[in-house]
Amino acid sequence: MFNKICIIGVGLIGGSIALAARKKNLCSNIVGFGRAGSKGNLIYAQTNGIIDNYCFELEAAVQDADCIIIATPVGATEAVLAQLKDYWADTAVYFDVGSTKGSVVEAAEKVFGYIPENFVPVHPIAGAEKSGAQAAVSDLFLDKRLIITPTKVTSPESLGLVQDFWQELGSSVSIMDVQHHDAVLAATSHLPHILAFALVDLLARKDEQNEIFKYAAGGFKDFTRIASSDPGMWLDICLANKNEIVQLIRQLQGEMEDIAQMLEKNDNEQLFNIFSNAKNARQRFLNLYEK
Amino acid sequence: MFNKICIIGVGLIGGSIALAARKKNLCSNIVGFGRAGSKGNLIYAQTNGIIDNYCFELEAAVQDADCIIIATPVGATEAVLAQLKDYWADTAVYFDVGSTKGSVVEAAEKVFGYIPENFVPVHPIAGAEKSGAQAAVSDLFLDKRLIITPTKVTSPESLGLVQDFWQELGSSVSIMDVQHHDAVLAATSHLPHILAFALVDLLARKDEQNEIFKYAAGGFKDFTRIASSDPGMWLDICLANKNEIVQLIRQLQGEMEDIAQMLEKNDNEQLFNIFSNAKNARQRFLNLYEK
Repeated sequence: MFNKICIIGVGLIGGSIALAARKKNLCSNIVGFGRAGSKGNLIYAQTNGIIDNYCFELEAAVQDADCIIIATPVGATEAVLAQLKDYWADTAVYFDVGSTKGSVVEAAEKVFGYIPENFVPVHPIAGAEKSGAQAAVSDLFLDKRLIITPTKVTSPESLGLVQDFWQELGSSVSIMDVQHHDAVLAATSHLPHILAFALVDLLARKDEQNEIFKYAAGGFKDFTRIASSDPGMWLDICLANKNEIVQLIRQLQGEMEDIAQMLEKNDNEQLFNIFSNAKNARQRFLNLYEK
Repeated sequence: MFNKICIIGVGLIGGSIALAARKKNLCSNIVGFGRAGSKGNLIYAQTNGIIDNYCFELEAAVQDADCIIIATPVGATEAVLAQLKDYWADTAVYFDVGSTKGSVVEAAEKVFGYIPENFVPVHPIAGAEKSGAQAAVSDLFLDKRLIITPTKVTSPESLGLVQDFWQELGSSVSIMDVQHHDAVLAATSHLPHILAFALVDLLARKDEQNEIFKYAAGGFKDFTRIASSDPGMWLDICLANKNEIVQLIRQLQGEMEDIAQMLEKNDNEQLFNIFSNAKNARQRFLNLYEK
């Protein structure tokens, strides 16, 4: 499918793309690009056959590449695009893998003054509890959902190529509007992470913190597991999608205020409605989307 | 340990106590008491060897019993105690298994005008996703935590007997003050359930609800699993502990408001502090309390 893939940022996601692309014979050569400070990580990636070689010079890294993948933290996208600008090749296809898409499209507009038609914003919905090339695995994207958010100017060729690439890696690809993507992900991923961080932070500052964590049963453990996610990565994601997130926080605050008032008023009926609406909705969607 | 145990409410908890007590030879006879409407459940329990027999007359059910267990929904405790009052035996020991303890102690005070010294408030922290005698298993309490909240007048004999009973069933028993119990459980169990119900209810009313549930990844699923809990049972529990819960909801609203404002102001440092405090606290407690 490609001759040379250049991966900018050979971490969990970048490294896993490399392993999967190689396994599926989707390219003949994979070069990794990173900062000098990430040399150890790049050496590991090369030694373990994740990439063929690595490079600290962007010009050399992207030379003759027909597919360039931006797999850095989403907050670094603008800086990476600014570096890429001078070597941008109309004959290659570019995509990022960031968890927010509005911020990525904005970054491209800011750097280029327009959005290149061969730049495709992509979001693979795949776990990210570990990080670095050492965590990379070839089946990270297998049977996982992936959202592509083409802009108005994305060329059908670039879109088709990127979609084919990810389907070859085993992802279930959907196409979605940028803003819609960010609203949906704020709800399914960003807000829950913020809630888990907020709840654990709140409880860990209480006098009863020892008992709270000692007597925590199943529900609480499930609920707070994502509070062990990487704080820096989540800071990055939350700031990149803050408009959607703040809006949702306000809405949830309203819902919680309603519940607090219902409790104070012993409003059994309304509380029962909220609880059973939630249970029924969850069941409805489990039936729809779970195997 | 006991001659005759009377279980009021032979559901998941009551039935599992019966199975475990029999397995451990802690009594020679177990009788179940329930409303006439629960006849099917009681027949099932008898047919399947969970109880020896059942009774719809409370007087006959508790006659000669030396251990009476209140295993109804916590909201029914006052009504059950009022029924038990006429047949209360000083020679027997009584305990309940409700998820809130302040409301149970209040119910006893209201019914008797004092708290009987042979009544011991107990809370086994064990899963309750299923319900009814059909869900009962003999190892429900094995290696699970259990909190006893004696009052100032609970007799040491009653406390000791109930503690021994539960330790025989395999529970890890702690003693805690009633109010402290309710504050801790509000944080570890009641608030997370309310949050999960609130979040799913909120999202299920959005236009994007289909995509939200379709693209929900691991974190969201973990987070909202407890929204499938029984709405009636949770209504009961939340109302029984509403003072503690409402206080916590207000505190969490404050924390979320802080986070919303930090996002609006791009306050990286403070946000990073909250996220990493949470991650570190969770890890600290995992190290302490997980095997």
